[in-house]
Amino acid sequence: MTDHRKTAGRTQLPLLAVTLGDPVGIGPEITARTLADPANAAFGRGLAVGDAAVLRRAVEVCGLDVRVRAVGAPGEARWEPGTIDVLDLGIAPADLPWGRVDAVAGRSAVAAIEAATRAALAGEVDGIVTSPINKEAIWAAGSQHLGHTEMLGELTGAAHVDTMFVVRGLKIFFTTRHLALRKALDHITEERVAGSIRHAVTALRVFGHDEPRLAVAAINPHGGEGGHFGDEEIAVLRPAVAKAAAEGLGVVGPVPADSVFHQGLEGRFDGVLSHFHDQGHIPAKTVDFDGTVSVTVGLPILRTSVDHGTAFDIAGSGRASHGTMSAAFRAAAGFSRCADRIRAAYGTAAGR
Amino acid sequence: MTDHRKTAGRTQLPLLAVTLGDPVGIGPEITARTLADPANAAFGRGLAVGDAAVLRRAVEVCGLDVRVRAVGAPGEARWEPGTIDVLDLGIAPADLPWGRVDAVAGRSAVAAIEAATRAALAGEVDGIVTSPINKEAIWAAGSQHLGHTEMLGELTGAAHVDTMFVVRGLKIFFTTRHLALRKALDHITEERVAGSIRHAVTALRVFGHDEPRLAVAAINPHGGEGGHFGDEEIAVLRPAVAKAAAEGLGVVGPVPADSVFHQGLEGRFDGVLSHFHDQGHIPAKTVDFDGTVSVTVGLPILRTSVDHGTAFDIAGSGRASHGTMSAAFRAAAGFSRCADRIRAAYGTAAGR
Repeated sequence: MTDHRKTAGRTQLPLLAVTLGDPVGIGPEITARTLADPANAAFGRGLAVGDAAVLRRAVEVCGLDVRVRAVGAPGEARWEPGTIDVLDLGIAPADLPWGRVDAVAGRSAVAAIEAATRAALAGEVDGIVTSPINKEAIWAAGSQHLGHTEMLGELTGAAHVDTMFVVRGLKIFFTTRHLALRKALDHITEERVAGSIRHAVTALRVFGHDEPRLAVAAINPHGGEGGHFGDEEIAVLRPAVAKAAAEGLGVVGPVPADSVFHQGLEGRFDGVLSHFHDQGHIPAKTVDFDGTVSVTVGLPILRTSVDHGTAFDIAGSGRASHGTMSAAFRAAAGFSRCADRIRAAYGTAAGR
Repeated sequence: MTDHRKTAGRTQLPLLAVTLGDPVGIGPEITARTLADPANAAFGRGLAVGDAAVLRRAVEVCGLDVRVRAVGAPGEARWEPGTIDVLDLGIAPADLPWGRVDAVAGRSAVAAIEAATRAALAGEVDGIVTSPINKEAIWAAGSQHLGHTEMLGELTGAAHVDTMFVVRGLKIFFTTRHLALRKALDHITEERVAGSIRHAVTALRVFGHDEPRLAVAAINPHGGEGGHFGDEEIAVLRPAVAKAAAEGLGVVGPVPADSVFHQGLEGRFDGVLSHFHDQGHIPAKTVDFDGTVSVTVGLPILRTSVDHGTAFDIAGSGRASHGTMSAAFRAAAGFSRCADRIRAAYGTAAGR
């Protein structure tokens, strides 16, 4: 139970901090559209986090009929109809050029993540939803981080952070992600896969599956067909699955990768462990491009995000689709019921 | 225009030869269900090819209320309501044990493919649809082939044969298929990709796209992100695409593989060239498992098939789903309008 709920004294819709991301990317626009969309208001209450001036400009370029109301603390938000409350940082002005790397924009993006994370750690919001940032901009602003995940890990003192995709209820995990495919194959060892299985099963439990059923994807065609088409299944995956199953974890596999996602979407599994970026990305984004949500697992706070970038090429045009952002917002609202489990599983002294 | 149509003297539904596959696998059952399904009869007329005794047993285990009528030649088929016509080979009896490798079953499976192919080459049918066969059974029967594709290639004298997947209108091609993933990566050269692009663009034209738009999938995450995550895009794919584009072919890429299938299904491309088995299989089968049809490209005849196996474990139980077989039947019916183009593009002296 978070503080604002205690204060309210009755069950309310979850409260989510939504960062604007890079002020000159599409983040402010998709945040404005998401928080102005009445269909999303049925799922949760959103508090924008960033610069009020930047959000006002986004509302304007999107042609939205909503008012932006700056607040100094989450507790001041009122969620009045036709209004978007924004925790105002007062860093970036409204006249930064769209779609250009900018140190002030980077500073604003970093500050929004920090403010949203603080609010979540303090229990002032039930979770955070993040808009895309630009690496070069945050570096220009003095940040050393590679992106959101590293930053959030440090801010919360998390020991180990993973990405989990959620698409149509199926949860997809990754043994490796941002590696060249050849390097990924070298990286996939029995020990790493066994570790990924443990992390995935824990995540499934934390995110609502009391008796998790995880399937491990194969790597080679037809699951290697008994070693005819590669031996990773025999040498790496089967021993890792056997080890995890012997520990009592609900895991099966390797299952041929061209069937396992179909079976998962049919409800046969709660989660699928894929082994490289596109192996998990392809099924999710092909089945539901806009509905694929990224959840950061391992933080003591709930965080969802879009998986796309700042789209500098169309920023400021009002053309950016807020489909994925809406999905990320709704997913966070749904997972807010897991907030206590998330804190219990991933909370650390260092992070609080 | 094929012979039987000339004889009929009016436009009729396409006529498709449907092989029973291995008599002790699920082939006879899915063929019986497909040809007994009134919803399929609106698309084409099916002539089963195999043993009448085997088909009768399948009708029985499936509990279908249809009669099996043995014919000696395609021209004798009558397509009477409640009847399945079968070009009877008289090889396998009705009492072979289900789900066991059997030389007689293998001989029947091979003979059905030969008979269907002969009928298609002679213009007696508009195309063939094949049920799964068992490799060991055809080897036990003396065949040296690895499977359908090799056999059909030899029977028709085809110079080069590819597999094309069709799912929801999108056509998916493969640079490599039945290779371990590591070997596939070694196999993907600029020359091979350029060749695959040419074959794919030709196939798109033959199968109804007058101005084909092909996208080439990337191999690494984010398409390699400028070489940060692997160099296959820079060293192999881009030059191959550039070469093909310079030849006037409608090809773009490499496009990140987690977006390209989504974009293709949205209609931005007619076809996608994937580079290894699961890269193309995963999106197709995850989006529409039953609706993914395999088309053999490069033969002078039209051939579609299911992509699954004989399922010996459930053969004879009447439980096999005919979803994919129905999709293969309907796809063949649809592509029968391309029969002339197929013959013109892939017909060779050796094959006729």
